[in-house]
Amino acid sequence: MAEVDETPLSVRKAQDFAQWYLEVIDRAGLIDKRYPIKGMKVWTGYGWKVIRLMDDLIRAHLDADSHQEVNFPLLIPQTEFAKEADHIKGFGSEVYWVTRAGDNDLDVPLLLRPTSETAMYPMFSLWVRSHADLPLRTYQLVNTFRYETKATRTFIREREIHFFEAHTCHADFEDAEAQVRSDLQIMETFAEQLALPYRVSRRPEWDKFAGADYSLAVDAYLPSGRTLQVGSIHQYRENFSRPYNIAYETADGARAFVHQTTYGMSERLLGAIVGLHGDDRGLVLPPLVAPIQVVMVPIFRKHNREEIVGKARALIDGPLASARLRGQPLRIHLDDRDIRPGPKFFEWELKGVPLRVEVGPRDLDNRTVLAVRRSDGAKQPLQLSHLAEEVVAQLMTVHTQLLEAAAAVRAKDEHHLAVLPSKGADFVGIATAHWCGAQPCALRVEELVEGSVLGARVEQTGSSTTPTDVHPPSGATCVSCGGAATKVVSVARTY
Amino acid sequence: MAEVDETPLSVRKAQDFAQWYLEVIDRAGLIDKRYPIKGMKVWTGYGWKVIRLMDDLIRAHLDADSHQEVNFPLLIPQTEFAKEADHIKGFGSEVYWVTRAGDNDLDVPLLLRPTSETAMYPMFSLWVRSHADLPLRTYQLVNTFRYETKATRTFIREREIHFFEAHTCHADFEDAEAQVRSDLQIMETFAEQLALPYRVSRRPEWDKFAGADYSLAVDAYLPSGRTLQVGSIHQYRENFSRPYNIAYETADGARAFVHQTTYGMSERLLGAIVGLHGDDRGLVLPPLVAPIQVVMVPIFRKHNREEIVGKARALIDGPLASARLRGQPLRIHLDDRDIRPGPKFFEWELKGVPLRVEVGPRDLDNRTVLAVRRSDGAKQPLQLSHLAEEVVAQLMTVHTQLLEAAAAVRAKDEHHLAVLPSKGADFVGIATAHWCGAQPCALRVEELVEGSVLGARVEQTGSSTTPTDVHPPSGATCVSCGGAATKVVSVARTY
Repeated sequence: MAEVDETPLSVRKAQDFAQWYLEVIDRAGLIDKRYPIKGMKVWTGYGWKVIRLMDDLIRAHLDADSHQEVNFPLLIPQTEFAKEADHIKGFGSEVYWVTRAGDNDLDVPLLLRPTSETAMYPMFSLWVRSHADLPLRTYQLVNTFRYETKATRTFIREREIHFFEAHTCHADFEDAEAQVRSDLQIMETFAEQLALPYRVSRRPEWDKFAGADYSLAVDAYLPSGRTLQVGSIHQYRENFSRPYNIAYETADGARAFVHQTTYGMSERLLGAIVGLHGDDRGLVLPPLVAPIQVVMVPIFRKHNREEIVGKARALIDGPLASARLRGQPLRIHLDDRDIRPGPKFFEWELKGVPLRVEVGPRDLDNRTVLAVRRSDGAKQPLQLSHLAEEVVAQLMTVHTQLLEAAAAVRAKDEHHLAVLPSKGADFVGIATAHWCGAQPCALRVEELVEGSVLGARVEQTGSSTTPTDVHPPSGATCVSCGGAATKVVSVARTY
Repeated sequence: MAEVDETPLSVRKAQDFAQWYLEVIDRAGLIDKRYPIKGMKVWTGYGWKVIRLMDDLIRAHLDADSHQEVNFPLLIPQTEFAKEADHIKGFGSEVYWVTRAGDNDLDVPLLLRPTSETAMYPMFSLWVRSHADLPLRTYQLVNTFRYETKATRTFIREREIHFFEAHTCHADFEDAEAQVRSDLQIMETFAEQLALPYRVSRRPEWDKFAGADYSLAVDAYLPSGRTLQVGSIHQYRENFSRPYNIAYETADGARAFVHQTTYGMSERLLGAIVGLHGDDRGLVLPPLVAPIQVVMVPIFRKHNREEIVGKARALIDGPLASARLRGQPLRIHLDDRDIRPGPKFFEWELKGVPLRVEVGPRDLDNRTVLAVRRSDGAKQPLQLSHLAEEVVAQLMTVHTQLLEAAAAVRAKDEHHLAVLPSKGADFVGIATAHWCGAQPCALRVEELVEGSVLGARVEQTGSSTTPTDVHPPSGATCVSCGGAATKVVSVARTY
């Protein structure tokens, strides 16, 4: 039996976030980055299970929103890729090219999808014929490829990326806008499941997705003091449907181009989870995506090992078998290895298991077990008579604590940028600023802050209304030029 | 609302199997083959759901056999690929090469995995240190790529392939053999779930997997008169562990190379399902992998549409909600479109839905609904008082009928090849033949039959014994040279 390596993490999170981040990922065993291609990694069983749980949550949301899960080829002919001018400008310098197969040079080089617009839209052109075919709502969960020339960083900047992408076609702009609203609603629910607070910004014109009419970006704030874009929702209007000829016959016989939207997210979500919730003892996984939600550790000595392990197993097969966390059975692991409890505690804390349940003879005599929450380390005896409810309640407490702690980290670093910092001054956090809307002013902010104008802050104001840009108070002036402000923008250093 | 195209299939299955096969796939809407790269296709929502259901069945089997689902990069450096000489000889001429990224030529070309030995084994070399790390059991479900130069055929010969691959490492040959036995057991259960009869053959030396010590192939027999290899299980011994240096410290401190096995299956399984079970009205899906297991068609007129649709929905939400087919809730679709029942029947038969349930006013008055099995078209009134049990029983009848019909097709065409046919004679079916073991004799059989020697027939003789080659009766002589026979081989034309 492999021994547990009880060496603590070499740095503290508050001390060196960047190094802590990589070390936690490595020590928790989510991936193995020793694969011999930079920016491409191996998902271990543990890490891949987190991804699959996240994928299943996404699927449930999209299926409920009448999307079909499809699967398109990885390879895209250069000729199709080149049809939308802005798109190829945006992605052309970072795609991988297949130029040979077997012993042949290919007549038309094929690229590995960086995203699937140019794979899907020639087919959408065949699929959409009449207004009865609309709306068309599809999504896929696939691997995508970007030849990053900057330094790679696990989950955050990779060359092979686990990717979710929804693509929809609509009869008109208004119906496409309704899809954008649905996507924002899905984002809200999904982010809550991941215990992930975020901000939505309308990206500035020069920073929107290649080919989009507008881009809403979903940014999480990490304790490093930087934001991480974890998702995006794009309105394409007719920007792709015209070059790809996705048109339909309207009810009165006319011909019209569809309006399109996309919604994308990636394994960056996991990067945010690691960075937000982890601590100096390791990973902390939100219960809904934890491969193991509860680790049960029997506390035994030689003479009573069999008895205590048996009683622990009986709890799992008995009362806990019917426990449900938001409708799903619990994922419980019984660690019955014949080693001391200390190393077990160490290992499962490192791997971020949300709840540990210790089953010892004295507790059992008192008709209790001892629960230890990963989020705050609090210990709590649970009554065997209400074990299922109490375990579920503890998991929900962990979930809530994670969400609140992450929001508190962000709140601490949120501020208003009333005057421009001097060049080279320290800038931490996520700021709001008033802006006149002119690009030179935004670029000056970016230069002095050494960060990015994330864009106009967008707020959701309920279930069915269109999210709107937050307006500056009357009389507000641009932080850069002093002219009349038209937007409230978010400003931050970014990944 | 899109109209139903009620054109019947243009050919009958018995008349032109090859064309029927492609037409059924197209009309049932499993895929769209109009993607602009040959041998790469688009999975529609319907087809991808079948694949996902098959994947879930595979996952359950492998997880129960202590495998971890992992996910390795798609791209493999040429330098790693070249380490096992036979392997590169076997695959070198059919791989896709990435030679450029962005504007750069790559120093080391990268290939798209045709299979993942050469991606995984450099990592296994890092993962396996001591006997405590063994056995190592992993699998993944991924897309693989082969540059086929022969004509492509949907699901059967593709250039992008949905693929399952399990890779294991063991302390010694015997433990690896135990894994081969487990894999054969899994194959047996899984094939039963797909209603898929098959034969296992030990491939001849010259036809085994590139790098394997031996290869067991799983062949299905299609009504075209040819076999289709749908899976394979390979014993590698130390053939890969030596070049990739996958070694461990034994309990007594010595160093030893691991013994490895793999188990692979692909979307060919779906090709076999289509070819075996389909009929002149379209696809027939085995219930356990049907995206829609039961389509409920309310039979209404204008005046009672709302009432009948409401009653049908009440059956789905009421008694059928608790129905379970082998432990899983049913996948039921209510077709409440305002069109005549005829086109609905046509469409769902084309798409292979195993059971149709008609809900009409007269049936309801009799406290029944009418079930129609896709497998044999039999109509049967089901009692509302026992609806869940009776629907499940009908689905199991469909399942059994499919399995038996497929086995009967094969049995009809099974024969013993006592004498070699003359060159150019017609050969149909799957034959046994006695063989001396010499390659020239096998090649002569292959030439005259215009088919393949699939290899020594292997029979499973129970749950825990090693599957063994079937031995010829004493005194049997080689069908080719007349010398003493040592093996009973299967002979067939193949895909």
